Amino acid sequence: MILTVTLNTALDITYRVRGLRPHGTHRVSEVTERPGGKGLNVGRVLAALGHEVTVTGFTGGATGRTVRDRLAGTPGVADALVPVEGPTRRTIAVVDTATGDTTQLNEPGPVIAPAEWSAFQERYEHLLRSASAVALCGSLPPGVPVGAYAQLVRTARALAVPVLLDTSGEPLRRGVAARPDIVKPNAEELAELTGSHDPLQATRSVRRRGAHTVVASLGAEGLLAENAAGRWRAAPPNRVHGNPTGAGDSAVAGLLSGLVEDLPWPERLARAVALSAATVLAPTAGEFDRATYEALAAQVAVTSEASAA
Amino acid sequence: MILTVTLNTALDITYRVRGLRPHGTHRVSEVTERPGGKGLNVGRVLAALGHEVTVTGFTGGATGRTVRDRLAGTPGVADALVPVEGPTRRTIAVVDTATGDTTQLNEPGPVIAPAEWSAFQERYEHLLRSASAVALCGSLPPGVPVGAYAQLVRTARALAVPVLLDTSGEPLRRGVAARPDIVKPNAEELAELTGSHDPLQATRSVRRRGAHTVVASLGAEGLLAENAAGRWRAAPPNRVHGNPTGAGDSAVAGLLSGLVEDLPWPERLARAVALSAATVLAPTAGEFDRATYEALAAQVAVTSEASAA
Repeated sequence: MILTVTLNTALDITYRVRGLRPHGTHRVSEVTERPGGKGLNVGRVLAALGHEVTVTGFTGGATGRTVRDRLAGTPGVADALVPVEGPTRRTIAVVDTATGDTTQLNEPGPVIAPAEWSAFQERYEHLLRSASAVALCGSLPPGVPVGAYAQLVRTARALAVPVLLDTSGEPLRRGVAARPDIVKPNAEELAELTGSHDPLQATRSVRRRGAHTVVASLGAEGLLAENAAGRWRAAPPNRVHGNPTGAGDSAVAGLLSGLVEDLPWPERLARAVALSAATVLAPTAGEFDRATYEALAAQVAVTSEASAA
Repeated sequence: MILTVTLNTALDITYRVRGLRPHGTHRVSEVTERPGGKGLNVGRVLAALGHEVTVTGFTGGATGRTVRDRLAGTPGVADALVPVEGPTRRTIAVVDTATGDTTQLNEPGPVIAPAEWSAFQERYEHLLRSASAVALCGSLPPGVPVGAYAQLVRTARALAVPVLLDTSGEPLRRGVAARPDIVKPNAEELAELTGSHDPLQATRSVRRRGAHTVVASLGAEGLLAENAAGRWRAAPPNRVHGNPTGAGDSAVAGLLSGLVEDLPWPERLARAVALSAATVLAPTAGEFDRATYEALAAQVAVTSEASAA
């Protein structure tokens, strides 16, 4: 199975509201809820692609119960979340039906006690023993040490399980130094980590810091990937318009799926770009349409560039 | 016991956010949750005053479970809520810590099925048999007939239980026609019901429509009350500054508490105004400080006016 880790799981709530005015009172016309946090999103896409997935991380409180109830209804996803005392955070996306714009309110998440973090590490090591790959995704909840991902990368490498890291800020910086197999920063995370706004230079710099393969997601321009074997760019056939929520998580699912199927890098990147574009085009945020994905997968252009490394 | 009815209970969530910007992403710095809906607020204040209270209405889903869990921890409040299929709504108050202003997002509430409405009416009639007074509070959830409060007023009157109605719009208009003992509109509800912006005229008009006593809450000016025995104005000693959330519910609790203790009207009004002001002054929305309440109660000025009726 493929393991995904979401230390800061969420109950993602979407409100539809006509005309959001600060200091006004608004009647919400439509409410939707789903389990969230990057690793859960990655898991859902992997399961839709036919992979066996186990999700772990922390969950607690009434919101955590709702997340688990919903996961129980998701075929192909096994729930190995570790219960904690504090409540799983909510994220609220307020979609203004007049303009289509979204205002986001994110709760911070539960404070994780040292004993809870230890319990997680034990569960993680146990789960790795039957994993073909692992993805470490998203932000850290309060109480988890900033070097958490570095530690989880080292544990995966010690057990020879390929590990992908998708986070930002200091947890990313420390995680990269622990030499993960793949990191997938977006343009902003790349610039924050390296200080360079040139994706080529920045990607190179992240490799020097320890990542074996760097896959940079550059929005509408697609992916730029580099490792010891080469450098590639993969872009969707047309500029896609829609909701980018979850597009990065779909790309991560594409990369992992290609990894466990041992596809060559250009095919992994084509899959990641097609899944990402199909997610942007889907009417529901974070979902993807299978037919759209398959049609796009055949059309993604992957070009190989001379690597200067 | 005193019975309060909240057909559209809520989980009231307060977020503290620094600088709310439409279309921005916000980290919530503090999250608080409490059971909400006007009747539950009234019940909490009554219990704090030492009364035995039973709360009824509808509750469902994960949010409904949280509401019931919290109520179970509230001394003096007995939970007689009727379970329904749909989830209890959330209300979200986003407090901007930079300006102190609040932006409100209110979910619509569950759709109540005809069988659920029937089950409620049976429970209500049963509970009335041991009630010394009943308050019918707040909006109707989808699916409940617009004449619901009129029906509940008639049931209470048939069983000789004094009934107070605190709602708005068409449910208020129909409810008033069923001749409740007390209605407590605010200035806006009064104007909407009668078409008059003159509180004296409007109060008179509501009595003609069927209410025995009308207690109009006029914000900082306090209360204006009128019935067959007289007309009174009750105002706090000073203009109070703070958060008006729940001030109206505290006034309702004061009126009910005075009713079951058989206090003369001026004392009931003094209690209602003092509770309301103590709620505005409290640091936590909807709570009140007992010492502040007792100090204010002695200072509320109640004046009797010649009633033209």
